[in-house]
Amino acid sequence: METSRQVNVAAMAKEARQAARVLAMADGAVKNKALLIMAVRLLEQSAWLQEENNRDLQAAEAAGLSSAMIDRLRLNESRIAAMAEGVRQVAALDDPVGEITALKARPNGMRVGKMRVPLGVIGVIYESRPNVTADAAALCVKSGNAVILRGGSEAYYSNRAISACLMHGLQEAGLPMTAVQYIDTTDRAAVGELLRCDADVDVIIPRGGKDLIARIIAESHIPVIKHLDGICHTYVDAEADLAMALALTMNGKMQRTGVCNATETLLVHRAVAATFLPEVCQQLAQAGCQLRVCPETRTLLPAQLAVQDARAEDWDTEYLDAILSIRVVASLEEAIDHIERHSSRHTDVIVTRSHGNAMRFLREVDSASVMVNASSRFSDGFEFGLGAEMGISTDKLHVRGPVGLEGLTTQKYIVLGDGQLRR
Amino acid sequence: METSRQVNVAAMAKEARQAARVLAMADGAVKNKALLIMAVRLLEQSAWLQEENNRDLQAAEAAGLSSAMIDRLRLNESRIAAMAEGVRQVAALDDPVGEITALKARPNGMRVGKMRVPLGVIGVIYESRPNVTADAAALCVKSGNAVILRGGSEAYYSNRAISACLMHGLQEAGLPMTAVQYIDTTDRAAVGELLRCDADVDVIIPRGGKDLIARIIAESHIPVIKHLDGICHTYVDAEADLAMALALTMNGKMQRTGVCNATETLLVHRAVAATFLPEVCQQLAQAGCQLRVCPETRTLLPAQLAVQDARAEDWDTEYLDAILSIRVVASLEEAIDHIERHSSRHTDVIVTRSHGNAMRFLREVDSASVMVNASSRFSDGFEFGLGAEMGISTDKLHVRGPVGLEGLTTQKYIVLGDGQLRR
Repeated sequence: METSRQVNVAAMAKEARQAARVLAMADGAVKNKALLIMAVRLLEQSAWLQEENNRDLQAAEAAGLSSAMIDRLRLNESRIAAMAEGVRQVAALDDPVGEITALKARPNGMRVGKMRVPLGVIGVIYESRPNVTADAAALCVKSGNAVILRGGSEAYYSNRAISACLMHGLQEAGLPMTAVQYIDTTDRAAVGELLRCDADVDVIIPRGGKDLIARIIAESHIPVIKHLDGICHTYVDAEADLAMALALTMNGKMQRTGVCNATETLLVHRAVAATFLPEVCQQLAQAGCQLRVCPETRTLLPAQLAVQDARAEDWDTEYLDAILSIRVVASLEEAIDHIERHSSRHTDVIVTRSHGNAMRFLREVDSASVMVNASSRFSDGFEFGLGAEMGISTDKLHVRGPVGLEGLTTQKYIVLGDGQLRR
Repeated sequence: METSRQVNVAAMAKEARQAARVLAMADGAVKNKALLIMAVRLLEQSAWLQEENNRDLQAAEAAGLSSAMIDRLRLNESRIAAMAEGVRQVAALDDPVGEITALKARPNGMRVGKMRVPLGVIGVIYESRPNVTADAAALCVKSGNAVILRGGSEAYYSNRAISACLMHGLQEAGLPMTAVQYIDTTDRAAVGELLRCDADVDVIIPRGGKDLIARIIAESHIPVIKHLDGICHTYVDAEADLAMALALTMNGKMQRTGVCNATETLLVHRAVAATFLPEVCQQLAQAGCQLRVCPETRTLLPAQLAVQDARAEDWDTEYLDAILSIRVVASLEEAIDHIERHSSRHTDVIVTRSHGNAMRFLREVDSASVMVNASSRFSDGFEFGLGAEMGISTDKLHVRGPVGLEGLTTQKYIVLGDGQLRR
C-alpha cells in the first residue's frame, strides 16, 4: 500500500537532532514568526486540508468506524480555525528558554545558577484527533525543541497535510523544516524504530489509549512522559458546606463525562452521609448518571432510587461515562487510605470548611493535582494558567500534572567564575 | 552460602511504600532527630563497624582484590567519623518538603500553585565504598523518601552493620525502621527483583561502574537517574587570559584525576595555540600528565617534549587518569561542534574575557554544567552549594547535574478554591 511505505526513522531522528541545535538557539521572535505563519497557512489551506481529511473520512466509513470516531476525525472550517487560533495562542506565551534562576555567589566568588533549556528532540505518538499535530508541534517549537510526530493511521492524510502547513511556517521564518517531521507512513514498525532512537530522541510523549501507552512503556528505553488513568475522587468531608459539595460533585461528574479529570468516585464522610447522599444521588440520577454504591450508601437512599451495588473492581475503574461509584467513609483517614489504594494519582478533591482537614488532604494525598473546594474538572493546563497543554502527566519524575511549555524544558547549571581553582 | 540467602525484595518494596507515606508526612524536626541519632550510633558502634568491615577486608584479600579496591573498602575510625559528620550535615540542611511556590490566583478566584513533595520510594544500587550506605540513606530520609539499599557484595558485612545503625536512628525517633532497608543478601538475582518492583519503587539511582548502569537501564522499567561518562572539556578561547587558562587547565586536569569532573580534553583556539600550548604542555608533562595531541598541536611543541598522537577514540575516552587529549580548533564554533560530538554532557568550560563568547558558550553547549572561567573540578553538589550530593545526573529529564535534596523530590499541583465550578 502506498501509505505503508518504509520510512527511515533513524535518519529522521538524526535530522531532528541537528534541527534541535538550531531551534535551541533561535530567538523568541523567530520562533513566534514561524508559529504565526503556520497559523496563517492552516487558514489559507483550509479547503485543501478538508479535501485531505475527506480521504481519511472515506476510509474510516469504509472501515466501519463508529460515528463518534468519525466525528473526532472530521476537520471542518471552524475546527481548522480553532486549530490555527491554538497555534497563535502558543506564539503569544512567554518563551521559557534562556531564563536564568537562582544565580548565587559561592564563598569563593564563583556564581552558580540554572538556565532553562529545551529538552532537545521530542517524539509525540498520538491517536485520533488531527488537531494534535498542530498543537503538539506548536508547543515543541515554542519551547525550542524539534519534534517527530507519529499520528494514528486513521488520520494519515489529515496529519500529513497539517504537517506540510507547519513546515511551511518553519521555512518562511528561516528555521529548519526538519524541526517538525511527520512519520509519513502507516507502517506500525515505524513506531518501534522511533522508540529505539535513544541517542537522538530525548523523550517520548504518547497521547492515546492504554494499549498504545503500554506498548510504548514496554518497548522504549527513551524516557516517557505518560498519562495513565484518570480515576479522580471527590471527598465530601464531615465539615463540608453541603450545598457546595453538591455543586462540586455534579460539576466534577457530569459537566463532561468522557474526560480524564471527571470524578469517578465520590467518598462521603459518615457524619454527613444521611443528609448529603439522598439529595446528591437524586440529582445525579435525574441527570442520567448511573450509581454504583457501597452497602451503607444503599441503606441511606430512598428505595425507589435505582442504584447498583459497587463491585470491588468499581473502585479501580475509569468509567469515562455517566457512572459514579459512591462510598461512605468513617473518617478523613479512611478517605485518604481509599485514595491511596485506588486513585490513579491524577486529581483528587476534598470539600471541607476545615482548614486543618484541607491542609492534611493537600499534604497527604499523593496525586499530581490535589484540590480543596474546586471541581476536579479544573485539572487542565488551560485552567491552571499554563496557556497550553501537551497532556497531563501521571508520572512523578520531571513533570507532574498538566504539561505546559516548562515541562518541555529542563535546566542546566551555569557557573560564572573569574579563574577560581579547586583546592 | 549464608550471605547469598533468598530475600523477598517485593515484600521489602511494599514495606517501603508504607514507610514512605509516614516519612512524607514527618516533620523536619523528627527527621533531623533520626539523622542525629544515626550519627551518634555510627560513632558509638565504631569498633563493631570495624570488626564487621574486617570480615569484608579478609574476604577481599582472600579473593585477591587490588590494594586500591581494598583501601576503598576499609573503614577506620576517621572514616567512620567522617561518615557520621556527613549524616549530621544533611540534618543541618533546609527541609525541601512542603515548600509551596508560584501560588497564583486564576480569574475565577481559584488559586493554583505547586507543593514540593518526596518522590516516594528510592532504590539505590551501588558498589564499592561502604560510606554510600549512610550518605544515600541520610539524603533519602531528609527528603522524606523511603530507601532500599543494595550495596556491592564485597562490602556486604560493612553495609549491613551501617544499615543497622541507621535503622536504630529511625526507631529512636519514632519513624518506621522500614524507611531504610538493606537488601541483606549477596544474591545477584535480588537486583533484578528490585528492578521489577515498578508499582512500589519510584526511581532507581545507580552509583557504580558502566556495567552496573548498563544492566540497570536494560532491565528496569522504573525511571533511572543515572550518571554515565564524565568526558569534560576545557576550551581556551582566542580571547582568554592565558595565565588564567593555564591555571584552570592544570587544576581541571591534575587537581584530582580519577574523578568524573576532571578535564579529559583541552581545546585551544588557533589564535593563541602557539603561545599557550608549549607552556601548558611543559607544565602538564612535568606534573606527570601524558599528552595525546592533534597534528597541529604537535607542530607547536618543542621536539624534546614526549607526546603521543591522539587517535580517533581519544576524543571519546574518559581517562580517569593523568592523561589529556589536546586539539587546536579554528573557532568558537569548531570548539562547540567538537563538544557537541564528543562531550558526555557532564561539564564543559570556556576560558575567555569576551562576554559575547562566554554567553554563546553558555547558551549553546548542551551539558549538565557549563562554566565560564572556572575549573571543571567544581562540578559537584558541595561546591555548587547544594550541601550534599546523591551523585551527578547526566540525564536531561527531572534532574541534571549534581543531585541534591531537591532532585529527590517532585512537585504536585495544589488548588485552593471556594466552590468554583467549570463552565
